[in-house]
Parts: sequence; structure tokens; C-alpha cells
Amino acid sequence: MQTIELQSSKYHFIGDTLETVGTSSVFRQVTIRPAMSGHNSLFVGQIGDWTWDAITALCGTNVFNAVNTSGAPTYLAFYYFHIRSSPVIHPGCLTFGDRIEILSTPFNFGSESILTLHRIKKASPGEPPAQSIDIEEFYDFPRSDCLYVETFNRWIARSREKSNRDLVKSSPVDFKYSHLCSLPEKYSPRLICSQARLNQTFHDIRSPEHVCVIDDFQTEYRIDITRDVNAVGLVYFAAYFSIIDGALLKLWQQLGRSAQSFLKRIVLDRKLCYLGNAELDSLLSITLKSWRKRDDPHNEIYNAVIQDSETARVIAVATMQIASEAPL
Amino acid sequence: MQTIELQSSKYHFIGDTLETVGTSSVFRQVTIRPAMSGHNSLFVGQIGDWTWDAITALCGTNVFNAVNTSGAPTYLAFYYFHIRSSPVIHPGCLTFGDRIEILSTPFNFGSESILTLHRIKKASPGEPPAQSIDIEEFYDFPRSDCLYVETFNRWIARSREKSNRDLVKSSPVDFKYSHLCSLPEKYSPRLICSQARLNQTFHDIRSPEHVCVIDDFQTEYRIDITRDVNAVGLVYFAAYFSIIDGALLKLWQQLGRSAQSFLKRIVLDRKLCYLGNAELDSLLSITLKSWRKRDDPHNEIYNAVIQDSETARVIAVATMQIASEAPL
Repeated sequence: MQTIELQSSKYHFIGDTLETVGTSSVFRQVTIRPAMSGHNSLFVGQIGDWTWDAITALCGTNVFNAVNTSGAPTYLAFYYFHIRSSPVIHPGCLTFGDRIEILSTPFNFGSESILTLHRIKKASPGEPPAQSIDIEEFYDFPRSDCLYVETFNRWIARSREKSNRDLVKSSPVDFKYSHLCSLPEKYSPRLICSQARLNQTFHDIRSPEHVCVIDDFQTEYRIDITRDVNAVGLVYFAAYFSIIDGALLKLWQQLGRSAQSFLKRIVLDRKLCYLGNAELDSLLSITLKSWRKRDDPHNEIYNAVIQDSETARVIAVATMQIASEAPL
Repeated sequence: MQTIELQSSKYHFIGDTLETVGTSSVFRQVTIRPAMSGHNSLFVGQIGDWTWDAITALCGTNVFNAVNTSGAPTYLAFYYFHIRSSPVIHPGCLTFGDRIEILSTPFNFGSESILTLHRIKKASPGEPPAQSIDIEEFYDFPRSDCLYVETFNRWIARSREKSNRDLVKSSPVDFKYSHLCSLPEKYSPRLICSQARLNQTFHDIRSPEHVCVIDDFQTEYRIDITRDVNAVGLVYFAAYFSIIDGALLKLWQQLGRSAQSFLKRIVLDRKLCYLGNAELDSLLSITLKSWRKRDDPHNEIYNAVIQDSETARVIAVATMQIASEAPL
């Protein structure tokens, strides 16, 4: 029983540590490694595993091989992924050997969904481990030395074998969540995501502080089965981060900007909502828009809408706030 | 001092365990997670981290932030990567929640290089942890329930800032290796790699058991900075596995085979030797050849030679033995 084993233990590995904090959080210290960093989606994928680890540790079910009431495999799919960074700490600045600490806290959203908050910072020797997530700090007063990540997941199973369309809600029998705290309604990702679904962006298009720069940049991407498919034959959620970055790079270069300036960009905020599932042979059409701050041309917002080019179904909506020093 | 901390300890995490076996090996049990599996290069990248972990645990230096005598960062670059599988266990069959155990043993190759052997198998409850790698088993009598991986690494540093060409040998001061066993000369990867460099393949082209199927299939790939670049700005070694798979898929489909049959292929043996370094803007030309066994058309050998299309410098040579059920 892995999850029981964990309740009151503390573990180490090559200086990495992990401990559960009561029954509500998991705290770990990690050394950044090649397989979880770089100019790709590896760090995002790692955070996804931390979500599954935290829920496995605290919610009585082994997320990695969960089954629903009918005995079919059920997956804790990513529906919403939000990374909030700062110029001091952002995914692009983490490199080999960096020591980081992560406090992960899941919240009660009923039997079919779960929200997990991760607070990530450079490890400070001597500083006592964080004991709980401060919701106000997380949402309203973020520290510049912390990276904040929200993942909102839903239990899904295939309704038709071998098809990745029409996935249905389906939570495992042993999934325990009633002991978890509830999140104040005003912070619920449900409203944010339904707005994004409606507006096809997380950006407030009426914002007077922003001017539109690119109104409509179209590109296509075909799912690459040598890169985008996870071990259970679904398109890997983290792959969408690379797919969007690839489209953004095309726009970036069309604007006459260099690859080096792209690698140096700082993604201050990144929201991605998964609204549909792609088949493994899907051709995706990607529409990008961008805005910039009226008083700061280096503060840009990029929006991506990913659709199945055949059916026009919206697969994902993503919005990024980027600080760049690229010539405009 | 992380490495000292490790010497006599045993650690757990969500059921994962790791322990050093004397001063020569590291033994771990791991649950397969999304970020380390799938139809991509994630599992290969994970094995790479296990190599760096094992050497960090046993060789007195923190591989993740090693510096050379002049204080410059030095990287334990992958020069040769060999995965030997079986139909019973191969990278493509590992899925979420699988429990595997890995015994990792580095061998003394002097101050500038190191070979690490990994033996990977499904965890067997109750079975005592393996204490040492059996060299004869590893090279001459592999078990069908084990996955065997060799990684041969060399310490390299940039000779010119911001350039990935002309990387130079450069080991860290605190790198300890004299306590490690030496590998019998006949198993040294040096001969195998120099042969591959000479012949541009690991396959014995004079083998009477094989007939050539594809003599020369050409394709190109431009390094994708949104997918292929690691945190220190070098092309990630694991990305070459995806790059080669992408080229192979093109050939596969030109042969009229389906994406599903590609996903179902079993890679029984895979050797990759890194002979040069690509710049981040490199256009690579990839040349594929294939052979099949005279008496078994489903037993195929594919060879890839990756060159910098501008200079024709050979970047990598790879050979794969594949069992497929695709119609020929």
C-alpha cells in the first residue's frame, strides 16, 4: 500500500527529499536534471507527475494505475494548467543542479475533479520546510522568488476502445477527497476556464492597457506519434506546450526576431485549458493573436487557439504573458 | 555532500526505493510515470538521468553541476547509448503504474570517460534486490525478462562560449573512478564505436543472414529549439532518438505501413553513437538503410546516419533491430 507507507515518512535520494505534511500536502526538494528541464515541455511534464504523486500520496488511490467502478483504466487528465512565474524564477531559468523545493497541495472538488497547487522556489538551506499553501499569497500576493502552478484534473476513461474522442467522466472507487480543504469559490478554475472557452482566450480583450499587435496568425501542426503520444496512447498533455511554442516561434520569426531572443524570452504567465482530445492522426490548426502593453512594448500577451482542422472542434486555448527584449 | 549522504542509506518515495549497493552499484525500484514513458524519447532521457544519478552517488562528484579545473561547467555527455530489449520487455511496452527495478553499475574507464550498465526488469515482490551486474549475463546471456542499457559518457566542456562545436575533454577535479571495476577489454564500447564511425553502421554489412531492403532513403530535419534543446543550450542527447524515429516513420509510411504498426513495432536492439555536436540552427540530413533477415522478413535492421547538411560532418550513427508485424 504505497500511499499508507507514505503518510508519516521522510525520504531522500541524491539529496532529494520528499515528505507528506499532515494529510494535506507533499513537500519535496529536488535537483533539476536534464530529463526535467530545458527549452521544451519536460519541466511541465515533471510538474504533471508531481500532481499525480501528491494525489497518490494523499487521496488513497494509485493514480498511476487507477481503475473505475467497471474495472476500466481511468486517467487523471489535465484540464487546466496555469504557471505563474517572475523574472526571478521561471521555467526557462532552471538549469542542471539547481536545488528547488516544491510544496504541493490538492483541494477538494468532489469525486470527478481535483485542483492541485504547487509552490516552487529555489531551496534555501536552513529555512524550515513550508507547512501549507497560503491561498492569498498564491492568488493575490505572489512572491517574486516563487513559481506558482495550478493543475486542475478530471478523471476520464475511454468510452470507445482505441478512440480518444468522447472520453467520459470516471473516477476510481478508492479516490478519497473529503479530507482535503475546499478552495474559496472566487479562486475556482471552473469560472476561468468557462470564460476562456467562451472567449477563446484568458486575456481580457477589453483591457484598455493593451493594444492588439497580431490579430490573426494561422499555422498548422500534425500530431507527431514519435513525440506527442503518451504510454496509454493519448496525446500527452505536456506536448501541447511544445506544439504552442512551435507555432509561437513561427510567428516570432515572421516578426523578424531571432531564435536566441526566443530562447531568452521570459514567460511570466501561462494558462492552458484542454477542451477536447485529438486523435493520433489529427491535423491541428493553430490561431495566434497577440497584444502588447500600451506603456511597455516588451510586455506581450500571446494567445493560441488549437482546433482539429477537420472538425473545427476546439482542442485547447492557451494564453501567455511574455517579457521579451527582442527588437519590435 | 550529497554523495556521502548516500553511501549507506535506503530511500523510498511513493513506493519508489533507491539504495547504493556497496560502492559499486545503485539499485532502485520505480513506478513508471507519464514523464518517463510513451512513444517518444522520455524513457531514454530518464535512463540518462539514472546514469548521472549513479555516478553522482558513487564517484564523488555532483554530475549535475560539475566544473573542471578551470572552474568552467563540464558535462557528462552521452557518447554511446545501447538498449537491448526482448519481446517480453522493451521501452514501448512500459506503461503507467508498471513497477520496475534498475541496477546501475558504472565502470572505470579513466578520468575522461565512464561506462554505466543498467539492468531493468519488472519488479518481483519478494525477490531480493540484485547485488551486482553479471557481465556474462549482460553481454552474452541476456535474460528475456530484462532490459539492458549501456551508456558511455565523456566529460566535455565548451572550448568557445556560445558555440557547441569543438567541445573539449574536461573532467571535474573531484571525479573518483579508481574504486570502480574495470570492464573486460572485449566488452569495451570503444571498439564498437570506432567500427561504427568507420562503417557508418553497427550492423555487419557482410552478414549472409541479411538482405538489403532499402539502400538509401534521404530525409532532412532542422533542430527544433522548442523541443530539442536542453537547459544548458546543447542539443539534448535524447532528442536524437525522436529525430531518428521521425525519419524512420517517414520511411515506414513510404513503405505503405500504418502509424499503428509503427507504434506496435518492437525495438529489440538500439545503438546510437554521438560523433559530433549540432548547432541549435543546424539542418540535419538523415540517411536510412534497412536490411531484413533472409529467413524472417519481420526481423529488420534499420540504420540512420545523421549529418550536418552544411558541412556533411557526421553527427550520429544509429542502428536498430526491429521486430514488426507490419505487412511487407
